[in-house]
Amino acid sequence: MKVAINGFGTIGKRVADAISKQPDMEVIGVSKTRPNYEALIAIKKKYKLYVPRDKIRAFEDHGIEVSGAIEELISRADIVIDATPAGVGARNKDLYIKLGKPAIFQGGERSEVADISFNAMSNYEKALGKRYVRVVSCNTTGLLRIISVLEETFGVRSVFATIIRRGADPKEIKKGPINAITLDPPHIPSHHAIDVQRVLPHIPILTVALAVPTTLMHVHVVRIELSKEATVKDIIEVIEKAPRILLIEAEKHSIKSTAELIEWARDLGRSRYDIPELVIWRDTISITNGRKLTLVQGIHQESIVIPENVDAIRAILKIVTKARDSMRITDENLGLKRWW
Amino acid sequence: MKVAINGFGTIGKRVADAISKQPDMEVIGVSKTRPNYEALIAIKKKYKLYVPRDKIRAFEDHGIEVSGAIEELISRADIVIDATPAGVGARNKDLYIKLGKPAIFQGGERSEVADISFNAMSNYEKALGKRYVRVVSCNTTGLLRIISVLEETFGVRSVFATIIRRGADPKEIKKGPINAITLDPPHIPSHHAIDVQRVLPHIPILTVALAVPTTLMHVHVVRIELSKEATVKDIIEVIEKAPRILLIEAEKHSIKSTAELIEWARDLGRSRYDIPELVIWRDTISITNGRKLTLVQGIHQESIVIPENVDAIRAILKIVTKARDSMRITDENLGLKRWW
Repeated sequence: MKVAINGFGTIGKRVADAISKQPDMEVIGVSKTRPNYEALIAIKKKYKLYVPRDKIRAFEDHGIEVSGAIEELISRADIVIDATPAGVGARNKDLYIKLGKPAIFQGGERSEVADISFNAMSNYEKALGKRYVRVVSCNTTGLLRIISVLEETFGVRSVFATIIRRGADPKEIKKGPINAITLDPPHIPSHHAIDVQRVLPHIPILTVALAVPTTLMHVHVVRIELSKEATVKDIIEVIEKAPRILLIEAEKHSIKSTAELIEWARDLGRSRYDIPELVIWRDTISITNGRKLTLVQGIHQESIVIPENVDAIRAILKIVTKARDSMRITDENLGLKRWW
Repeated sequence: MKVAINGFGTIGKRVADAISKQPDMEVIGVSKTRPNYEALIAIKKKYKLYVPRDKIRAFEDHGIEVSGAIEELISRADIVIDATPAGVGARNKDLYIKLGKPAIFQGGERSEVADISFNAMSNYEKALGKRYVRVVSCNTTGLLRIISVLEETFGVRSVFATIIRRGADPKEIKKGPINAITLDPPHIPSHHAIDVQRVLPHIPILTVALAVPTTLMHVHVVRIELSKEATVKDIIEVIEKAPRILLIEAEKHSIKSTAELIEWARDLGRSRYDIPELVIWRDTISITNGRKLTLVQGIHQESIVIPENVDAIRAILKIVTKARDSMRITDENLGLKRWW
């Protein structure tokens, strides 16, 4: 299957690399609107680069080889991954409609842009054959993974999560805060609760979000009331077998922070030190009153949605009809946690 | 009443200034162990400075006037505020016993150092006439204030709080994290829950704490299950009348972060931009299921325990027997929120 990546920034460049490793799809080209260092990386990695028609000259003046206009890229594709900045995806949709191409949008877009908001573990089958799919944002993806895994075994009665957001990504030099804790948003609930319910409408959930001065990862303090009683050991057993969730030892391996977690990923030789798995600190898993689970989890905001974008392609094009089958192919080829 | 301030650092210098403004007590001297800028500030503010006997020469070599050895300061006092670094207070206790002086310790000490752990709104009357009192730490003080106020009107069935700690105080140059979210501690519950229960043993409470790269304030996401149903309006009415709790408008006044809150305190001309009141963002006050309250609150870690230290003096020496009477005198003279 021929995939066009529209937007080669934080998400787009990672999705391109992930698709390149899959056996059943190929990247036929990527797009950029500015001739910056990421455009150079695209060329260096042998992706064909497409740009707005009126900017072809500007790119070539920068010495960057252009394969054509973005419309040409889209028209040659079986499917488009739209990884343009939040809000731009919705404006691009007209083009995808005009050229008759299915498309995957990111969580920064309003949910109305797509037929369905998507998480592989939560509602893969519902996305089969859909034309426009929106992969929910990083924080929502993290919440959906743990909720879906626990729901399957224990049932979930309600969820309360405090989301401590990283203020900016490592490459972002104009965002803050630099010395503050910001109520982001300054009301309750944050949009994450609403977004979880777009995928799992039956889950009562409340979320509170704050931004802090760090670039590495988001951290969630999650409290889940289970339907059935469970022990800490029960929870750990289920998470150990679950796709895309890593259990990390804070005390035993001395990984008590997002900084040590990222250092571990760097030492492992992971590309861009990405951690597409949801990370749960095993030491924090606590049960009170038999059914109230509390835990702390980390979300690598730049990469957690990458496997979901790959799976969304298979769902839309019905290449694979079962969630687990698609996830296994994705994860095996990305070298993620072995769970199959 | 003659008060000795043992330790003139973050807490000690503020307690000294606060006591100086009260009508029923006076600072007879403060102590320092190093001849740094804070020792110079003590002299500039006309506090008599006492130092370890073997360091008198070193201070004088720095051109800092010394009034005597620390033992002399303690022996002349009616009561001692121990504001030395965590753990040092317990070692000082022998001296206070030897010289027959009651003392107030800070929350960094283990609870065993004192006869009682103290918060003015929660258990003032239980501290009357006690010899050794420990004022609980900043985060615990913030939790106790909101719990005590709500308990009085609505009853409190359980508390769950996520504590987002500032990594270091503004003056601390060797502490972190500088780009991480740290599980601090990497297990559940954090000591704050245990410390709340030292003061209010009947409250079921769980706390999770993380440290982030900021210096200004701690922030708590607090979830309280009330015994009685309440509306957001009910909650606001009770908090508006409560001592030492400020309600802040995030949207209306554009104070959506700790940075804007501190800027507001600076603009108000508050000494050292201190905010000894607990700050609650009104916009975040939410009720679900009739009895589950969620809110976000800010704690100025350098100053929130200052009024409590003043009240603890009155409780130990039985100058005032009712909590509200002591708090009114303290707050009126410190220029805090008018609630009386």
